[in-house]
Amino acid sequence: MEKSFVKRGLTKKSENIADWYNDVVIQADLCDYTDVKGSMIIKPYAYSIWENIQKELDAMFKADNFQNCYFPMLIPMSLIKKEKEHVEGFAPELLTIDRIGEEQLADPLVLRPTSETIMYKAFANWVQGYRDLPIKINQWCNIFRAEKRTYPFLRTSEFLWQEGHTAFSNNEDNLQMVFKALNWYKDIYEKYLGISVYIGMKSQSEKFAGAKNTYSIEIVMPNGKALQASTSHDLSTNFSRAFDVTFLDEKGQKQYAHQSSFGLSTRSIAALILSHGDDSGLIVSPMIAPIQVVIIPIIKKNQENNLILDLANIIDKKLKLKGIKSWIDIDDAHSLGYKINEWELKGVPIRIEIGNDEVKDQKLKIVRRDNFEKQNINLDGFELKISELLKVIQNDLLAKSEKLKLAKTKDADNYKEFKKLIDDENFVRAYFCENKECEAKIKAETKATTRCLEFDQMNDDGVDGKCIYCGEKAKHKWLFGRSY
Amino acid sequence: MEKSFVKRGLTKKSENIADWYNDVVIQADLCDYTDVKGSMIIKPYAYSIWENIQKELDAMFKADNFQNCYFPMLIPMSLIKKEKEHVEGFAPELLTIDRIGEEQLADPLVLRPTSETIMYKAFANWVQGYRDLPIKINQWCNIFRAEKRTYPFLRTSEFLWQEGHTAFSNNEDNLQMVFKALNWYKDIYEKYLGISVYIGMKSQSEKFAGAKNTYSIEIVMPNGKALQASTSHDLSTNFSRAFDVTFLDEKGQKQYAHQSSFGLSTRSIAALILSHGDDSGLIVSPMIAPIQVVIIPIIKKNQENNLILDLANIIDKKLKLKGIKSWIDIDDAHSLGYKINEWELKGVPIRIEIGNDEVKDQKLKIVRRDNFEKQNINLDGFELKISELLKVIQNDLLAKSEKLKLAKTKDADNYKEFKKLIDDENFVRAYFCENKECEAKIKAETKATTRCLEFDQMNDDGVDGKCIYCGEKAKHKWLFGRSY
Repeated sequence: MEKSFVKRGLTKKSENIADWYNDVVIQADLCDYTDVKGSMIIKPYAYSIWENIQKELDAMFKADNFQNCYFPMLIPMSLIKKEKEHVEGFAPELLTIDRIGEEQLADPLVLRPTSETIMYKAFANWVQGYRDLPIKINQWCNIFRAEKRTYPFLRTSEFLWQEGHTAFSNNEDNLQMVFKALNWYKDIYEKYLGISVYIGMKSQSEKFAGAKNTYSIEIVMPNGKALQASTSHDLSTNFSRAFDVTFLDEKGQKQYAHQSSFGLSTRSIAALILSHGDDSGLIVSPMIAPIQVVIIPIIKKNQENNLILDLANIIDKKLKLKGIKSWIDIDDAHSLGYKINEWELKGVPIRIEIGNDEVKDQKLKIVRRDNFEKQNINLDGFELKISELLKVIQNDLLAKSEKLKLAKTKDADNYKEFKKLIDDENFVRAYFCENKECEAKIKAETKATTRCLEFDQMNDDGVDGKCIYCGEKAKHKWLFGRSY
Repeated sequence: MEKSFVKRGLTKKSENIADWYNDVVIQADLCDYTDVKGSMIIKPYAYSIWENIQKELDAMFKADNFQNCYFPMLIPMSLIKKEKEHVEGFAPELLTIDRIGEEQLADPLVLRPTSETIMYKAFANWVQGYRDLPIKINQWCNIFRAEKRTYPFLRTSEFLWQEGHTAFSNNEDNLQMVFKALNWYKDIYEKYLGISVYIGMKSQSEKFAGAKNTYSIEIVMPNGKALQASTSHDLSTNFSRAFDVTFLDEKGQKQYAHQSSFGLSTRSIAALILSHGDDSGLIVSPMIAPIQVVIIPIIKKNQENNLILDLANIIDKKLKLKGIKSWIDIDDAHSLGYKINEWELKGVPIRIEIGNDEVKDQKLKIVRRDNFEKQNINLDGFELKISELLKVIQNDLLAKSEKLKLAKTKDADNYKEFKKLIDDENFVRAYFCENKECEAKIKAETKATTRCLEFDQMNDDGVDGKCIYCGEKAKHKWLFGRSY
């Protein structure tokens, strides 16, 4: 009769991160499996993390005059086919409806893998003159990409995301938008999720199907694997040419709109789980935590518990008044040990225990989830101390993540070293000639792909190196890693 | 080069409400059509109304300890079939995926028409003992029901909604939930959308497929048609028996959970449009309006406009400080007349015009959208006056709606009168024997269906009447109407 999230032998993260991940998503009550291959249930605790991410990101979009909207989920196959690279990239992943009732559809309907095609068909009608630009819209929705091997949050056939889509009259404004969106995503990861990231440009092989260039957020996981955590695409005039998104400029000349699109998905929850979690379960960053402080009154059967419960309620109320998300665990069916396990599994940043000693001494016993540090604090002004401790935890998580990122990123001077470093579970920074054949061979031989060309490696410093693979001239050092 | 929402000959609502509706949804920039039959684009202005409804309703759910979550959109057909009445009710409307890539699916996947089946399959795993109850979850998502004849917002093959789902240990708590949810919906319609509603119980023919009883919100449209505006279902143990949602009670006895589900959709936007709109376009209730006050500075080419623009900015800032959603129309490409038309079309509750006279006299010219009443108010303390006027408009809209509802609801004593009143575009309250055959015949002969048995008609007062159709004993008067 125990609830499903009881810790029942969690694999150690340090021993087998894949098994640990499978254990923790179930035991921390983040998701559940269903009969539908590739689909999962996002349970309330994980959904609440997603809502917190949505709230922050949505505010960033709206502050920049984006408007939310909703486009149909079903897209005619004929529309998907209009941009050649786009359909080639997405064809293997498409889910389609071939009939409605008994009627076979001449033009099957695709469950949206992304919405450029259906949106830009509409943009073509909405835009006539330069005064109709820019268009800046966003939608929060479900997305379908058929996957053979699925992992909760990391890769599922259905997932949730936001997709921002724009049209500008010129290239400069469009590029500025591409980088602005990328920086919003960086803020979500660094400021809110406490995860240090790389940002840069994808290679032509790894870019979004149909884009001129794709820019991405890349995260180094504790096992050295790469997580592409969100992307921002410079679509240039590729789609506006395919969908005829044109406008008359001030001089009455017909011009193609410059476009960009960008998205962040529930994959961000996978990044949170993998980055911070430990052998005891999840660690949720305070800025995004559904519960920031859990209060456990240590109640016992053969004693007067009223004073303990009263104090717990006062603490809870004062924390809430200070804007801190607190929760009292008043469940009387489980032991203290059970409860501690449960809340550690769920990664609540701070735990407060209140028993007879605490009532007597008018102190609180507080425990940090990230490093298990315990301290006793006076009741006097405790809210401020808790509030400050949440900030300290937030900063410490980012610092720890930054440290891991740097420790796991190595420079390689030759291919032998490169292979060794990849095998040793690292990100590797190395000169690369940007030739597709070299890239494909490196991938085939090492399973490592280009992650991105970091912005600070992008400027041509006049110093050329030699490609790690072919030895030909290489202008820039790229980041490589084995991808999730 | 004019924007798509330019008023270009709006049909008069009083002359042809169907044509007016089709005109206004496009011209007020609420939606757009696509190549996908039965689907529509919800444009930013309408989506923003939906976000405001979401915000209020979501807060009601959360205050009652509901948790949001997300279940897969694709449901195996075998699950849908588990509850017999349910599949019979929904079969004609299902959209299905028969293959993934080249692989034909033995068990086709259905695009969710509603989520009882997939959710309760999961509930069966989540619930073991009485301590696991109640379950109260909610999800905001897209829904698919194939429709042959579609109307924007009223009836589309894809729409957006929330669906709340619960499981309780006993019938009493479950019924209380059913009515609580119905009252939240009543509040959304009456307090926020300013629309007076009927609430009551649906007949057995008209209830949700699989429910024991369905309770609904019914709205009388200006043409006397009925809009079923949201529903709350007492599922009793029908689904818990089909999906084995059982628990051990305090005595260790196995019991079936008592369940309810309830939803409110983007159809609420149709109710708003049809209820309040007039020959000039939309009228949005202040409590739910994306823009509550629009400020139009009357700028001219051959004059100094700075003082006018300065005053407009001050007004805008002061209104925003007071928590009022204001917007300045600084577009310099269109005439004042064009702008007035545009904002009337969009139904913004209050318009403020600022020209040379207003600057000179330090007054504001304000115009109510609902009744075109104009007044000049002093700058001194204007925010408070605007704030109060918004409340007055909100109340006036509800009062007007209440008046229409009562005027359009007539009692019939015999079938001849009944038919005449229905033909004259009324809701009709009449004795009905609750026999399915009578109901079917009335529908066939008059196109009127039972809307609901109002709660205040429900109590058995000991006085029986005679069924309007068959003349047999009838305990209650039911509401009838022609449905949208």
